[in-house]
Amino acid sequence: MGMIRFYNARILTMKDGEDVIEDGVLTVDGERISYVGDAGGEIKGSPYDREIDVKGNLLMPGFKNAHTHSGMTFLRSFADDLPLDRWLGEAIFPREAKLTDDDIYWCTKLAVMEYLTSGITACFDMYLKPYTIAKATEECGFRCVQVGGMNNFSQSVELQEEWYENLNNGNPLTSYILGYHAEYTCSKELLQSLSDLAHKYKAPVWGHNSETASEVEGCRERYGLTPTEFADSLGLFEFGGGGYHCVFLSDNDIEIFKKRGLYAVTNPGSNTKLASGIAPVSRYLKEGIGLAIGTDGPASNNCLDMFREMFLVTGLAKLKDNDASSVDGNDVLYMATVGGAKAMGLNDSDTLEAGKYADLTMIDMSKPEMQPVNNITKNIVYSGSKADIKLTMVAGKILYEDGRFHINEDPGVIYKKVNEVIKGMSEA
Amino acid sequence: MGMIRFYNARILTMKDGEDVIEDGVLTVDGERISYVGDAGGEIKGSPYDREIDVKGNLLMPGFKNAHTHSGMTFLRSFADDLPLDRWLGEAIFPREAKLTDDDIYWCTKLAVMEYLTSGITACFDMYLKPYTIAKATEECGFRCVQVGGMNNFSQSVELQEEWYENLNNGNPLTSYILGYHAEYTCSKELLQSLSDLAHKYKAPVWGHNSETASEVEGCRERYGLTPTEFADSLGLFEFGGGGYHCVFLSDNDIEIFKKRGLYAVTNPGSNTKLASGIAPVSRYLKEGIGLAIGTDGPASNNCLDMFREMFLVTGLAKLKDNDASSVDGNDVLYMATVGGAKAMGLNDSDTLEAGKYADLTMIDMSKPEMQPVNNITKNIVYSGSKADIKLTMVAGKILYEDGRFHINEDPGVIYKKVNEVIKGMSEA
Repeated sequence: MGMIRFYNARILTMKDGEDVIEDGVLTVDGERISYVGDAGGEIKGSPYDREIDVKGNLLMPGFKNAHTHSGMTFLRSFADDLPLDRWLGEAIFPREAKLTDDDIYWCTKLAVMEYLTSGITACFDMYLKPYTIAKATEECGFRCVQVGGMNNFSQSVELQEEWYENLNNGNPLTSYILGYHAEYTCSKELLQSLSDLAHKYKAPVWGHNSETASEVEGCRERYGLTPTEFADSLGLFEFGGGGYHCVFLSDNDIEIFKKRGLYAVTNPGSNTKLASGIAPVSRYLKEGIGLAIGTDGPASNNCLDMFREMFLVTGLAKLKDNDASSVDGNDVLYMATVGGAKAMGLNDSDTLEAGKYADLTMIDMSKPEMQPVNNITKNIVYSGSKADIKLTMVAGKILYEDGRFHINEDPGVIYKKVNEVIKGMSEA
Repeated sequence: MGMIRFYNARILTMKDGEDVIEDGVLTVDGERISYVGDAGGEIKGSPYDREIDVKGNLLMPGFKNAHTHSGMTFLRSFADDLPLDRWLGEAIFPREAKLTDDDIYWCTKLAVMEYLTSGITACFDMYLKPYTIAKATEECGFRCVQVGGMNNFSQSVELQEEWYENLNNGNPLTSYILGYHAEYTCSKELLQSLSDLAHKYKAPVWGHNSETASEVEGCRERYGLTPTEFADSLGLFEFGGGGYHCVFLSDNDIEIFKKRGLYAVTNPGSNTKLASGIAPVSRYLKEGIGLAIGTDGPASNNCLDMFREMFLVTGLAKLKDNDASSVDGNDVLYMATVGGAKAMGLNDSDTLEAGKYADLTMIDMSKPEMQPVNNITKNIVYSGSKADIKLTMVAGKILYEDGRFHINEDPGVIYKKVNEVIKGMSEA
């Protein structure tokens, strides 16, 4: 960390839509951006620890992965192409039950590596063992917003309060948001206690919401309400928050989202692979609901790749609406960057502006799919892939550059450990 | 070109399903593979011009892009998020009409670059100016099966006969298959003449087929038949062939496909972005119809990325069938490699076996999305991206390795030329 100057850069600040500064300069001082603009406006002389010739490549805000379960990397490609009930019951749950703290530590580091290769600078992570996750992500230098995944069998309101206090007042790379796994895994009493905690801290609350048709149906049977209506009836959304997936929101759910200022995080890769359905993203956009994009966990997706998700958000909307103009690519780019930051409470990581955190990525414009340059942002959304990520920086520190990781850990060690996690379980 | 030995390789031959040879050796002599198997079985001594330590990465057959319009790269990201009719009428057709031979030459080379980065070793290309396309692809060392794109306004049966004779008897990298653009752009008389030519050469015939619901409806109105029924009634499919897209085949169309041994090429990226629909791939599989995968052209997709297409083939099938077990990932990998080779008549480029062309790619197993190694083939289909392609070889020649191209052309020149193509048109 120190002072870094990027020059000869195209810069997509995302401050005012999709405007691109040509031949610009961006400087970083410590964790934050100190200047963005035309060459010449930055601090002169040689106070910089490093000057990077961007060579016409594009600097843009890092992507925000607004829903994931990082620690599940051990289950990647372990049980694909199964019906949902067999996938969960036979493959996922029995193995998750065996996970140790140490397992989660290594699996989370593997996820962070993949995020960095996809230009992702922060994730919204719901998983077991918050202190372990914080240790893993902080050691990598990665920004992680954790959210409670409480259910009837794991975590508790008391633990959430402890984590809320501790993880919001330590390393600024880590923050913690109150949450519940889902209506169908939590008792009414448990959710009511969480609502009480949310009122105490005036805090937003998040959970899986209306991911599948059967989830909504089950909730209606239990309470005569949708998952959104039920959570709202308990006061869970009085201070905002949002839902992951949101594939099956009703008209009234949408009104609640608008009234409470809730965010909807869409997870099209996971919803596709698990045959859950297509979220009505174009409607959410028209209704003005805040939108963000998540990969979901590597057991259900299976990769942690914002480029795949971005194409799917617009592509599936076009299929669902039978309209090739549905959900403009630039709206998707906004969701994947600024929208995610807002949903996650990362108000200093949304755009490239002086004073914001230096959470950014560099797109390699010398790749064939980035040419010709008819429209840079559409190139990113419709043609982009991990192969186009040249550099990823979080809080002023370059964590990934030209295929190499700078995360204080040897990738080979991480791979070995994660392979051991799943191998040990398979043999047990 | 010469003799090359790959060692310390994982090898997915695709000869017998998804078996992987661990710690294997593959040798290349000239254009063809001379040995695949355990270390020790290859020619001993040092006859090799180069020995490549594969370091446990994976060698597999190159992907076959079974439907594309390579020369359309100039229109990438030129007109996205428009309704289909405006996209074609306002953006695409007026600019295609201005294309010169030289434009197509450079645009095709840009497409070849992208194919190589995606592990694609051959394409099935329908576009204007076959000699120019052959020049561009052969200069790159790339394998290209061209297909007639004849319609009422462009190309002719006479020209197709000339191209058929010349392009099937020159450089073995190039071949030519008879074809028509689509029923809706060809008169009955024109298609009847093409059928006569197909009978003369006992040759298969290909065309766009049932891409949109309105295309099928229009054909029914004109002839009382589906596009498949109509083409078959003219004798076009007497010697086989197939259709691109095949989103809306009827029960009777499926019977015709089976009876004639026709291949269906699915193009899910394009069908998604243009809101055309989802092809019933699981049904085609069950019916035993030969399947292959294509990217379609860069104006409609917008990228030429087999990884995106593979995920979409299985993912969209799962959504369409409401079944997470629909279209197993391994079936998709077969379509993208062996299936494509069969459809394109590339019977010596399908698997990795001694005697076959050395058309192969190397998957970088050291990328985070390829770990852990629970299932290599599912990792490729569900988590793979262009970032995982370490090397691509066509006919024994390494055309792409570690991000560098070996195609007898400076990438910067190609980018400059293609940017000039579209810039010149926009200003005209």
